[in-house]
Amino acid sequence: MKIKPYKKDFYYSYTLGAFPTIELLKNKKNEVIKVYIHSSFNNKDVLDLIYSLIEKKDIEINDEMINKLSIKENVFIIGVFNKFKSTLDKTKNHLVLDDPSNMGNLGTIIRSSLGFDFKNIAIIKPGVDIFDPKVIRSSMGSIFKINICYFNSLEEYKDIYNKHTIYTFMLQAKNTINEIKFNDSLTSLVFGNEARGLDNKYLDENSIIIKHNNEIDSLNLPTAVGIALYAYQKQK
Amino acid sequence: MKIKPYKKDFYYSYTLGAFPTIELLKNKKNEVIKVYIHSSFNNKDVLDLIYSLIEKKDIEINDEMINKLSIKENVFIIGVFNKFKSTLDKTKNHLVLDDPSNMGNLGTIIRSSLGFDFKNIAIIKPGVDIFDPKVIRSSMGSIFKINICYFNSLEEYKDIYNKHTIYTFMLQAKNTINEIKFNDSLTSLVFGNEARGLDNKYLDENSIIIKHNNEIDSLNLPTAVGIALYAYQKQK
Repeated sequence: MKIKPYKKDFYYSYTLGAFPTIELLKNKKNEVIKVYIHSSFNNKDVLDLIYSLIEKKDIEINDEMINKLSIKENVFIIGVFNKFKSTLDKTKNHLVLDDPSNMGNLGTIIRSSLGFDFKNIAIIKPGVDIFDPKVIRSSMGSIFKINICYFNSLEEYKDIYNKHTIYTFMLQAKNTINEIKFNDSLTSLVFGNEARGLDNKYLDENSIIIKHNNEIDSLNLPTAVGIALYAYQKQK
Repeated sequence: MKIKPYKKDFYYSYTLGAFPTIELLKNKKNEVIKVYIHSSFNNKDVLDLIYSLIEKKDIEINDEMINKLSIKENVFIIGVFNKFKSTLDKTKNHLVLDDPSNMGNLGTIIRSSLGFDFKNIAIIKPGVDIFDPKVIRSSMGSIFKINICYFNSLEEYKDIYNKHTIYTFMLQAKNTINEIKFNDSLTSLVFGNEARGLDNKYLDENSIIIKHNNEIDSLNLPTAVGIALYAYQKQK
């Protein structure tokens, strides 16, 4: 097969760099198509680990391929894999992102979400492509350890996961994150798009604001999500 | 004068986009050299605001210059300014970043820091260039509202600001951010480089960890800083 620089409609994607490739091999081994290693890569510990995680026939020293796929970054290891589908766990808390538009942001959010035990993420469409190599790299491979799933609308998501209590993060909210008492049911923390936030129709008694001074318009989205996840974990 | 694509040794830098340019004009007017506007830009509110903030002679419609400086982004307004020096306010809390290496991260951190009332930031060298247009853009212009200053070492910083209590954020720390009681003196929150963190010699009774599970190695730096600033603000 011929591996080409990623496009959204491909059935495969790839990791850029040793760290996310190792996460891929550890967590989604059955989806791995090929691991490419640059001939100049000589970190023995990393090489031993990779050879212990996957059969030798699936590894290829191929500088040309690395150069072709890595764009401009210094990358020495690439793991090509079949894109996979996952479904959200109905019995766990969810993070919900309405149309996230920045790949680096989405990867960073996935990493925080995994670290704070929110291992199920709903993306409301359109949203960026979760399998874009930029998202995978920025997630540091966290994407291979979580369930992540697209929905057509927040309504569709709410209909399916109707046991979850929805908390919407909005600049117009009255409850501050310091005062809110999360209830003991299943929880969905919902964040809007970077530029637009959430539609005003979601403003209700479970809306939450992370207060900051008026010198800035808003916090950056991954920072806001990180603070919300931290505050939730602290309360539980 | 001839404005060229930014290099670190230039005496000037520039904002990319309307939002940071307006912050520049509002907060560092005396440093402004020129504002370039693309001929296709027709948001009347923004244009009126810009013309109200700066003399007409300092504004130029110049598509060629916009195209030359904006690299690949959709940018319609650019503000060229003289780089400026600032000193940290000895009577206020500080954020200290040891050798931050990513421009987008630094900009995001500046934005959070301003939003949570830490308006004085120390950068321990080398660290990225605070005036790189990528930092300015990612700060959303917050950089024009804070004091930011380089130091040769953390020791040099501590010698100068010896009234500040130093809290170091480190993965090996025993105090969690949930338990720590910040004292009432002046405070410096100190964070290490993205890849290396802080040197072990800074591990002491005022070291703090933001606990997360073992599924991830660490939080992304701007997320960790955001959580720390939030937790500090909550306690005060």
